[in-house]
Amino acid sequence: MTVFDTLRARFGARFSTSDALRVQHAGGEAHHRIAAPDAVVMARSTEEVQEVVRLCAAAGIPVIAHGAGTSLEGHLSAVRGGVSLDLTGMDRVLRVSAEDMDCTVEAGVTREALNSWLRDQGLFFPIDPGANATLGGMASTRASGTNAVRYGTMREAVLSLTVVLANGEVIRTGGRARKSAAGYDLTRLFVGAEGTLGIITEVTLRLHGIPQAISAAVCRFEDVESAVAAATAVVQYGIPVARMELMDRGLVAAVNAHSGLDLPVADMLAFEFHGSDASVAEQAALVGEIVAEFGGQGFEAAHDAPARARLWKARHEAWYAILGQRPGCRGWVSDVCVPVSELSGAIHHARGLLADCPVPAVILGHVGDGNFHVVFAMDPESEAEAAAVKQANAAMVRHALSVGGTCTGEHGVGIGKADYLTEEYDPGALALMAALKAAVDPQGIMNPGKILPGA
Amino acid sequence: MTVFDTLRARFGARFSTSDALRVQHAGGEAHHRIAAPDAVVMARSTEEVQEVVRLCAAAGIPVIAHGAGTSLEGHLSAVRGGVSLDLTGMDRVLRVSAEDMDCTVEAGVTREALNSWLRDQGLFFPIDPGANATLGGMASTRASGTNAVRYGTMREAVLSLTVVLANGEVIRTGGRARKSAAGYDLTRLFVGAEGTLGIITEVTLRLHGIPQAISAAVCRFEDVESAVAAATAVVQYGIPVARMELMDRGLVAAVNAHSGLDLPVADMLAFEFHGSDASVAEQAALVGEIVAEFGGQGFEAAHDAPARARLWKARHEAWYAILGQRPGCRGWVSDVCVPVSELSGAIHHARGLLADCPVPAVILGHVGDGNFHVVFAMDPESEAEAAAVKQANAAMVRHALSVGGTCTGEHGVGIGKADYLTEEYDPGALALMAALKAAVDPQGIMNPGKILPGA
Repeated sequence: MTVFDTLRARFGARFSTSDALRVQHAGGEAHHRIAAPDAVVMARSTEEVQEVVRLCAAAGIPVIAHGAGTSLEGHLSAVRGGVSLDLTGMDRVLRVSAEDMDCTVEAGVTREALNSWLRDQGLFFPIDPGANATLGGMASTRASGTNAVRYGTMREAVLSLTVVLANGEVIRTGGRARKSAAGYDLTRLFVGAEGTLGIITEVTLRLHGIPQAISAAVCRFEDVESAVAAATAVVQYGIPVARMELMDRGLVAAVNAHSGLDLPVADMLAFEFHGSDASVAEQAALVGEIVAEFGGQGFEAAHDAPARARLWKARHEAWYAILGQRPGCRGWVSDVCVPVSELSGAIHHARGLLADCPVPAVILGHVGDGNFHVVFAMDPESEAEAAAVKQANAAMVRHALSVGGTCTGEHGVGIGKADYLTEEYDPGALALMAALKAAVDPQGIMNPGKILPGA
Repeated sequence: MTVFDTLRARFGARFSTSDALRVQHAGGEAHHRIAAPDAVVMARSTEEVQEVVRLCAAAGIPVIAHGAGTSLEGHLSAVRGGVSLDLTGMDRVLRVSAEDMDCTVEAGVTREALNSWLRDQGLFFPIDPGANATLGGMASTRASGTNAVRYGTMREAVLSLTVVLANGEVIRTGGRARKSAAGYDLTRLFVGAEGTLGIITEVTLRLHGIPQAISAAVCRFEDVESAVAAATAVVQYGIPVARMELMDRGLVAAVNAHSGLDLPVADMLAFEFHGSDASVAEQAALVGEIVAEFGGQGFEAAHDAPARARLWKARHEAWYAILGQRPGCRGWVSDVCVPVSELSGAIHHARGLLADCPVPAVILGHVGDGNFHVVFAMDPESEAEAAAVKQANAAMVRHALSVGGTCTGEHGVGIGKADYLTEEYDPGALALMAALKAAVDPQGIMNPGKILPGA
């Protein structure tokens, strides 16, 4: 009996080799090449994941964990075939402690589902990559997003994990204490490992109290450079803004069209402030003064919750808004992150590249962290466009690396950034990563071809 | 020529096998057994560390990095002999960026030296374990201390590291971007690894702006339980206190005697508030209301910087204050950390143990994190006292583990907590840690006998 026969016998209709389901599990949302897995298993528990991994390990078959499928760097592409383990059925919130402000969820719970669950307890989970990703996927890519500037990334948010290793063992990486000095940081080993070291099945997360007051503001600028300079000043002043997002005028126009907003079409910063009434008012006043120094216009803090929700929903739909402007196009998004002092230079450099690039593109960014994205709307049939975008992306990465930055602030390596990893790290560091991979997954069956394609 | 001959020829007077220097490098500050290294090398650069590691690796000789020697869990004990690599001569601040609020220092820079260096730039490094430890040592033990409740631990503070691996390679674990999703988290692999995976020679750290306003307050309570309940309420209210320390009445008496203070002798909480003038005033007012609900007396926020400095200096000298009360005694300090909701129960449990223990002891704690210490002042000649303390410590650890906590919040494993690690983690997780160790240090020469004594 083959492994697939065994899986079919065990999982029934939750095992499939149908073309439709395989193609649905073949890739993420961006431009990377699609490679469908040989089969899909819809798992419902850690024990089921363990069973699948053990069967696959015994046969040397690759296993690729699959959440919401919102990856942007080809993490889900089954480049060596194998089984896609779909965890979206593992969608239970297992435990919430309002007293400790933490919770444990199955890997397939999405961030929106978690926040809906938490709302009536006065708690929220702040990390917000835009897409309604699963928490297992967010942990695996070390995701962050619009309010990392205040609340950190998945690196800080994850307290511990349950992981199925390549050898079929199930481990807990830690407990529920807020801090621990007890041995190697297994939690951080798996956060950002993109499923190449094991499959995350449960996530214990730090939560935050919903702030007493929240307000938002937008502010338009003469040009992108002025907006970035103002954002940098806000960071350096130490104002604990909860969000501070750059949207260039092209993005604002796209967002207006897609989401029915009527924002003034200009390069702008969008802010959100969290805290007590007094603190939110103080933050907004300080930011208002700073942006004015950089020529910011129309800054006004608004407490209107529906308007705020519309603004951030529109921002989160930026990807679809941009792609919607060029019917039939395919998106490619860059993701460099640089020290904040280098952000202005990096964005200026990127704008120079875009001026020479024939592909429509917009710039947006989590500017408080030094992380920005260029979204290109490519003609999928045009090799010339693909080549131009690839070249511009490479130039942005190399500029970022030259100023102490990274090729990926939050989207991860997948297959899209693997080549740049070898430029970002020295050979000794890369060899160490390969040694870790070999120690944890000696057969190389866990999401092969990602991060370290040769490992 | 032996390795030691080679080292002597290379390092001259900076290589020593003298008894005095060896004994000085034999242990930390607590009760653990002392084992002197066979030789000491005073290194002055990453290249020198690399040379020593390569020579020792070729001969299979253990290498133990040594900073300020303030370890509390026997990390420095040369249980298998070898070379102590003293890094205190690597004391240069290599780079400070006020704009990016980060810096790079050599591993031997102490936190007090760094803060002196930073002061006139309006910046500070918040992590404060009390002892004037080196930043390499603090990274290696994943240290934290009195203001982790606001600023996090070394896990969050370290942006990247330069590390000499067991194979003699020098690697950089990352860049200077505030966040990155580029591959395995090598930085966090070494933070908390206690020198067992490599030797940290340079540390890049996140800094913070010196707050516009700082105020402090002390508040006395009827008993420890009331103080802990008040502290828990402050955390759950989400007030961003910068420090919130529990000191029981025995500790307050010792601190008064040692540091010439005149604090009222009572179980107390000591607070510090950081922020804008308005924010500090608001935090203090809210905390004042909360502590009053738990019977707190005498709460008053003071902006008097010298008085504040005296308070925290006294708190930092608690270890010496306590030991000073029993001449000739030796200290033993527990270090459990539990979810905040379990803190009250854990401290109540600990107080029950102390009531039955013949050894003088006090309780102090970073209660905002759920981390507390019992310091025992033991007669070093009494086996009965040692046995009683060991038993009480074991009971505290097991209680902490039973409620989701950890055996060490901030002191690390060393040799002191190694036995408990096997109770804290499941066999699969321990096997994974051993696999990591074997992959990175196959000969087992990096600080052997620590964390995983069998590895």
